[in-house]
Amino acid sequence: MHDSADEDQRPSDSRLVPRFADIATFMRLPLVRDPKEIDIAIVGAPCDLGAGNRAGARHGPRAIREMSSLVRRVHPVSHVAPYDLCRVADLGDSPVNQNDLMDSLDRMERFFAEVHAGGAVPLTAGGGHLITLPIMRAIADRSEPLGMVHFDAHSDTNDVYQGNVRYNNGTPFRRAVEEELLDPKRTIQIGIRGTLYSADELEYPTGVGMRVITIEEFHELGVEAVIAEALRIVGGGPCYVSFDIDAIDPCYAPATGTPEIGGLTSFESQQLIRGLDGLNIVGADLVEVAPPYDCANITSHLAASLMFELLCVLAPAVARR
Amino acid sequence: MHDSADEDQRPSDSRLVPRFADIATFMRLPLVRDPKEIDIAIVGAPCDLGAGNRAGARHGPRAIREMSSLVRRVHPVSHVAPYDLCRVADLGDSPVNQNDLMDSLDRMERFFAEVHAGGAVPLTAGGGHLITLPIMRAIADRSEPLGMVHFDAHSDTNDVYQGNVRYNNGTPFRRAVEEELLDPKRTIQIGIRGTLYSADELEYPTGVGMRVITIEEFHELGVEAVIAEALRIVGGGPCYVSFDIDAIDPCYAPATGTPEIGGLTSFESQQLIRGLDGLNIVGADLVEVAPPYDCANITSHLAASLMFELLCVLAPAVARR
Amino acid sequence: MHDSADEDQRPSDSRLVPRFADIATFMRLPLVRDPKEIDIAIVGAPCDLGAGNRAGARHGPRAIREMSSLVRRVHPVSHVAPYDLCRVADLGDSPVNQNDLMDSLDRMERFFAEVHAGGAVPLTAGGGHLITLPIMRAIADRSEPLGMVHFDAHSDTNDVYQGNVRYNNGTPFRRAVEEELLDPKRTIQIGIRGTLYSADELEYPTGVGMRVITIEEFHELGVEAVIAEALRIVGGGPCYVSFDIDAIDPCYAPATGTPEIGGLTSFESQQLIRGLDGLNIVGADLVEVAPPYDCANITSHLAASLMFELLCVLAPAVARR
Amino acid sequence: MHDSADEDQRPSDSRLVPRFADIATFMRLPLVRDPKEIDIAIVGAPCDLGAGNRAGARHGPRAIREMSSLVRRVHPVSHVAPYDLCRVADLGDSPVNQNDLMDSLDRMERFFAEVHAGGAVPLTAGGGHLITLPIMRAIADRSEPLGMVHFDAHSDTNDVYQGNVRYNNGTPFRRAVEEELLDPKRTIQIGIRGTLYSADELEYPTGVGMRVITIEEFHELGVEAVIAEALRIVGGGPCYVSFDIDAIDPCYAPATGTPEIGGLTSFESQQLIRGLDGLNIVGADLVEVAPPYDCANITSHLAASLMFELLCVLAPAVARR
Amino acid sequence: MHDSADEDQRPSDSRLVPRFADIATFMRLPLVRDPKEIDIAIVGAPCDLGAGNRAGARHGPRAIREMSSLVRRVHPVSHVAPYDLCRVADLGDSPVNQNDLMDSLDRMERFFAEVHAGGAVPLTAGGGHLITLPIMRAIADRSEPLGMVHFDAHSDTNDVYQGNVRYNNGTPFRRAVEEELLDPKRTIQIGIRGTLYSADELEYPTGVGMRVITIEEFHELGVEAVIAEALRIVGGGPCYVSFDIDAIDPCYAPATGTPEIGGLTSFESQQLIRGLDGLNIVGADLVEVAPPYDCANITSHLAASLMFELLCVLAPAVARR
Amino acid sequence: MHDSADEDQRPSDSRLVPRFADIATFMRLPLVRDPKEIDIAIVGAPCDLGAGNRAGARHGPRAIREMSSLVRRVHPVSHVAPYDLCRVADLGDSPVNQNDLMDSLDRMERFFAEVHAGGAVPLTAGGGHLITLPIMRAIADRSEPLGMVHFDAHSDTNDVYQGNVRYNNGTPFRRAVEEELLDPKRTIQIGIRGTLYSADELEYPTGVGMRVITIEEFHELGVEAVIAEALRIVGGGPCYVSFDIDAIDPCYAPATGTPEIGGLTSFESQQLIRGLDGLNIVGADLVEVAPPYDCANITSHLAASLMFELLCVLAPAVARR
Repeated sequence: MHDSADEDQRPSDSRLVPRFADIATFMRLPLVRDPKEIDIAIVGAPCDLGAGNRAGARHGPRAIREMSSLVRRVHPVSHVAPYDLCRVADLGDSPVNQNDLMDSLDRMERFFAEVHAGGAVPLTAGGGHLITLPIMRAIADRSEPLGMVHFDAHSDTNDVYQGNVRYNNGTPFRRAVEEELLDPKRTIQIGIRGTLYSADELEYPTGVGMRVITIEEFHELGVEAVIAEALRIVGGGPCYVSFDIDAIDPCYAPATGTPEIGGLTSFESQQLIRGLDGLNIVGADLVEVAPPYDCANITSHLAASLMFELLCVLAPAVARR
Repeated sequence: MHDSADEDQRPSDSRLVPRFADIATFMRLPLVRDPKEIDIAIVGAPCDLGAGNRAGARHGPRAIREMSSLVRRVHPVSHVAPYDLCRVADLGDSPVNQNDLMDSLDRMERFFAEVHAGGAVPLTAGGGHLITLPIMRAIADRSEPLGMVHFDAHSDTNDVYQGNVRYNNGTPFRRAVEEELLDPKRTIQIGIRGTLYSADELEYPTGVGMRVITIEEFHELGVEAVIAEALRIVGGGPCYVSFDIDAIDPCYAPATGTPEIGGLTSFESQQLIRGLDGLNIVGADLVEVAPPYDCANITSHLAASLMFELLCVLAPAVARR
Repeated sequence: MHDSADEDQRPSDSRLVPRFADIATFMRLPLVRDPKEIDIAIVGAPCDLGAGNRAGARHGPRAIREMSSLVRRVHPVSHVAPYDLCRVADLGDSPVNQNDLMDSLDRMERFFAEVHAGGAVPLTAGGGHLITLPIMRAIADRSEPLGMVHFDAHSDTNDVYQGNVRYNNGTPFRRAVEEELLDPKRTIQIGIRGTLYSADELEYPTGVGMRVITIEEFHELGVEAVIAEALRIVGGGPCYVSFDIDAIDPCYAPATGTPEIGGLTSFESQQLIRGLDGLNIVGADLVEVAPPYDCANITSHLAASLMFELLCVLAPAVARR
Repeated sequence: MHDSADEDQRPSDSRLVPRFADIATFMRLPLVRDPKEIDIAIVGAPCDLGAGNRAGARHGPRAIREMSSLVRRVHPVSHVAPYDLCRVADLGDSPVNQNDLMDSLDRMERFFAEVHAGGAVPLTAGGGHLITLPIMRAIADRSEPLGMVHFDAHSDTNDVYQGNVRYNNGTPFRRAVEEELLDPKRTIQIGIRGTLYSADELEYPTGVGMRVITIEEFHELGVEAVIAEALRIVGGGPCYVSFDIDAIDPCYAPATGTPEIGGLTSFESQQLIRGLDGLNIVGADLVEVAPPYDCANITSHLAASLMFELLCVLAPAVARR
Repeated sequence: MHDSADEDQRPSDSRLVPRFADIATFMRLPLVRDPKEIDIAIVGAPCDLGAGNRAGARHGPRAIREMSSLVRRVHPVSHVAPYDLCRVADLGDSPVNQNDLMDSLDRMERFFAEVHAGGAVPLTAGGGHLITLPIMRAIADRSEPLGMVHFDAHSDTNDVYQGNVRYNNGTPFRRAVEEELLDPKRTIQIGIRGTLYSADELEYPTGVGMRVITIEEFHELGVEAVIAEALRIVGGGPCYVSFDIDAIDPCYAPATGTPEIGGLTSFESQQLIRGLDGLNIVGADLVEVAPPYDCANITSHLAASLMFELLCVLAPAVARR
Repeated sequence: MHDSADEDQRPSDSRLVPRFADIATFMRLPLVRDPKEIDIAIVGAPCDLGAGNRAGARHGPRAIREMSSLVRRVHPVSHVAPYDLCRVADLGDSPVNQNDLMDSLDRMERFFAEVHAGGAVPLTAGGGHLITLPIMRAIADRSEPLGMVHFDAHSDTNDVYQGNVRYNNGTPFRRAVEEELLDPKRTIQIGIRGTLYSADELEYPTGVGMRVITIEEFHELGVEAVIAEALRIVGGGPCYVSFDIDAIDPCYAPATGTPEIGGLTSFESQQLIRGLDGLNIVGADLVEVAPPYDCANITSHLAASLMFELLCVLAPAVARR
């Protein structure tokens, strides 16, 4: 593993440069366009064409960048200092086609393939949940499909909408299993809840072997047991962490397309992510922040804060390689 | 009991018709004007003239209808499918007089009497809490007064305001006891909190035999014990469930007339309602949603979600008859 | 022409039923699903997949319905009483596919063809501006293409986006000309303004013969001369009126996808529409209201008010046939 | 006439005490409870129970007080310095009954009768438009009914709502004529517009002799001619000025119960009020500001600014006596 | 100790005077300008010039006053009736200089020295956290420095910003220790969390002997153990309670300058304050409410509610003297 | 003068890269840190410490950057294509000290001196109006003081606040005259209005020779005469254009610190700026956008649009040199 970043690649210190000043990049990091120069690329994927209800997640990356100026450099509990471990930068946004979902999937796949080829690990701000599919296509090694820790209110393993729509924010993980990008037996879903289209709706994920922890089971087991279960399920192979902001209760995260009441708290979410330290994480994302529905930017601020939590388990994993 | 509804009386499937499409009815149900054709009537009672502070609950029914498009057909935990058990429809709104509280009470009583006479059980969206009084007048059998599970920050058993105002959102349950619509000994109030006009303010409800569970006692007992207490108090007789959205903390439900900090969470609210399964429920309401004070519609969405929770304990009760 | 509507098909009188009460239909009209029963169908077309920037117009029809409850029955200046002239109803929304723009165009075309075949003239609330294309496909007689009065900040006659996207809210009227639905020489565009991609951007519409009245020319000519020019250009043949809410200044209409400063006032807009009385209007729409960006619903209220203005020039035209 | 106010009765100077500091009184004036100590009483009348649609004007007085901190001491055009001419103070709010409209009318009448008996002229912030009725009852001399300059989108001379509701924000001036408080022949209404319940709706005001200037006629005549007409109609007798904020376009004044598009601009409103200088004004009000529907407080700020405009024509009239 | 307040010095009873009526003072108390007439002075300190990020807390006192109208007279759990124990009033705001932080510190110190000299104990609404420094300068007895219970997300014991800025909302408690106003060994900080500038950032507070309870330790210990620890640390000497609203999670308190996710709930906050009963409290404040960032006033309402909680432990302490 | 910019220095084409994508820079321009590489530097000056009332303009530059993505490349009326005339880039923000106004003035002066020395002309987004003072200090040639076209509701030529505050958003142009940076006889102020502290408040600007065009005179003269007057007053010498967003009516620009009703429209503002073509402009700014008070970002969008208008008169002036 290479040396850590030099000072120029660290975020501005908000004791010296006010948080509200200058261009808004993720975490106030430098903007770098060449993935070869960095270890972890924080990027945006502003595509929400797969929305089943409210759009707006296309504006997620910018809003998260804006609020990420409040995040400082060091984790308060683990004391991980990600910018000491890796070269991290804002790599800008993936190309998308604002009027064509399928073309957007292609553009995103090509973009993330370049990031991957350049040696950078992506930490992505969505966009709708369908963005995870082209990322997985770009970074998964089909000989060893990815494990996944998936935080969400919804399983996102439906099959079709409108009779023949196979690519929608409700379908990415069925597609990922079908395409052998994702190993369902090394996949755990946490926070699942919300009314159902039909009583058998969760048969697919459990049928293919995913471990589904509903919010009710989460409360029964408690944070520590759920973390232990996640570590057990995912194991030591390469894994991805996908965090749909709607895993969290709408009072913390109103700005999302398909909110469900009765969700995680922000503190529970922090604890759960912190518990993933040690996993062999090869990519992560935070999706479904739809800023037009936000209140005083609390959702974007939460998302930025959780992306830093993700960075603080991702950076050690990248540094270990 | 009759057969279940046919497919035409079920809500639109949001996998086929987008949630944002078409007229907003409760739960995307058909609009039916004749209570004889249905078993459970979801209705609005848009009267907030009894407000002591902020008005706006007159707009509650429409806002809840709008957000109820996000609710699907089957309960995620109990797997109750209410539309398989009963004929459920949106019956529109009760008449009200926008400038005359007493006349509104009369109009609502007549409307709910027709619903009741038609054989439909009302699940009502308020409006202010005073709407429960005319509903009880319409459906209670004075020979066997109703029991009640009452979720609220306030006991709503005050006597008079302004010297001689006896009908106000703070008084319905004292009136209901006086009118022998409500059996105080079969009544439980959950979530009571907030500063008091005077130290003896809760003497009335406890004096007449209501079981008052303050938020502090709720936290001491825990959800399961509170449910057990509710089932014990209410017993097997006919009962009503009245849910004032201000039972829940303002962070989840900002859009209400008299918020009180330190309230229930959305998840606790769901658990409590789920625990009422088995009661002989003859009507239910959700009141005090005041949309002008909402943030990104989270209160209306919460209200719509809890109305579905209520429906999923009400429908089995109706089907059992 | 048949007789006028009976009382049951008129909007609720808000002196008797409060504006906030009951289901929100357009203008508080009855909901009728069969176009054969009506003369003018007010419908929604909740598709915004052609947006170049901010989405949200999918929620336009519902928001306009909500605010249209403030509109009464008679025009204050012309004293046109549209419900005395024609049978008018809310026909619900056109089907759309929330994830597939091209399929949505097909679904809308089929829906409006049925409306047209049923003998009803559509007055449509968008959705993005691309919805006008399938409406024109459904109602235009290719042997006599439509004239059009087009209110907009943008000409919407661009060719392609993203290299190969030909169907986008910026392209409908180039497509309509190419498909011989729209007669460019009988087309007038009013309110055009805003920065340009390139200096020759308006060469297409003027090249094919459209009369483009920029906001600067509008101010030079004045309202009356612009009306005269519109009547002259469109002539006596069948014509369509398409009103993009962004023709109006963002202070009146913040809730739109691509606002441009320096637009029409609400009063100028009313005067311009009133001046169209006498044209042979065969359909009209009001598009690009994106409620997530609204302030206190002023844009939806403006849109509802202008739809009534459109109705009051459309109803006489329909009654004259 | 007494001497002008001493320095202690003037507003705080915002160059010395920041605008955001201290208790919010009207114009940062001292709070005085005895009308005998002042010449002009700025008061609130927080009653909106006469609303036909959206409530919220009950919160108008507080919101206007808050934003009135931005108003300084001297009029920029007339250079009238009202606090040099008269003793002006914030007299607090009239009592109201938050659940009983008729009782509120009585309480307001008694309160304003005391103000009047104490020798103070009221400049009142509503509340809904019905508040003008009890004010007129308190201050009108039935032997010489009041003239009125009435700015409004609506004539407010309807007769009944809901079959028998005679007191509603849509009826005050018919009642005032019937009670011989208001001389219709010395009454001018400016800014009237908006859709009608029926084509003959304006027959009452014109039939009893009121001069109704619709917004269309306003634009035809121009500001100066309308002012001249107002001065001519009202003449030299005692008159009242009532300004309903919905006279102004919703883009300037979104926070109102029954907005109508196509209204006055803020500048036109200022010019019109300034033109009333010289009238024998014996009271004035500004009504129908409903803060829950405001955007960034622009309506409250507009209202506070117009109250200062009213004060600057009222104070010279009071000083002249 | 003197007798309790007479009825005139108590808040208006909202059963008689609606909450929305009249001038907004803290808790609807009378406005008194002479500290000698009262025992507890509720005051505003509208200075936010020490903000590191978002300003706006200058508007805190007015917004808290507005929402404090919802608070009644008696504590629901302890049944403390503060207005029976002490003379309490709104004393207005401290002078500040809106453009000069250092001058504002001086003005506040002088103001609070007068309050202190007059015999009144201050309960202050901020303003930014730096306001606590001049209050401590005014009321601390340097021979017996104050203990403190400090609720906050941040330790606020940084040294300098921008190279030489020593007075900033992030530094007050280092300054207070240096100035021997605050006894660090009798100081406990509760709720500390959030990303760090550097891993050693908390070395100062722990180094000087403060007891720092991070949010993680709070969850481990539980409310009761934390209260016990607070009582143990602070002991029987004079102490101050400073509550930064950002101690609470942003879902409850979005309106603050430097939010941190994962905070206290409103209920936990109430319990913690209630547990401080018995301490020898000589002053308290609630700071960092920035109303421009609020949603439906929930933060101001929370702040007003917590100020009443503080009053209910402060009044008995004052009465005991 | 050098050649025009190459394609890489032009804004992204929003037909190819969606407006919502990637980092938000001014006009989607490249971010360049060296003023020597560019002709026109669009920069932010995020300082609002001189605010007399509401702060928040510190967030102006970022919000304007965000909304400037909607601006395209070519002016619709003049067809000026600024990026063909000059090398234009986003140069980031000037350093400021978030807690020290005087230090911020120094930092801004040094920053703009470097920009000036590098040969770039600054087009600046504020910040409060005091930012213009350090810009003028950096770019004015004291041997030939600047002329100025100043759009504002306020003259900003007050002397002191709080007894001794000489640097405040209300004082910059008195200071600039005193420092011989600004030639008052070549200065014109347009849009002046709003209540006054005292009747003689405008004696200073007129006394030193500034041409003050109040909003009333603006309406009397009309746009063209005002433009002619501006060109006459300023003449051919070097001049600065300073646009305070509060020159425009609050309905278009709610997000500002000291709004005044009765202001310019957005269209009038565009016309006025367009009329400045031909002046020898050496710098320009747009100030007082306070995003926390915005509604649906309309103020930021207006500001971004007007900055492009300014750029389209500035770029030809720069290209002419």
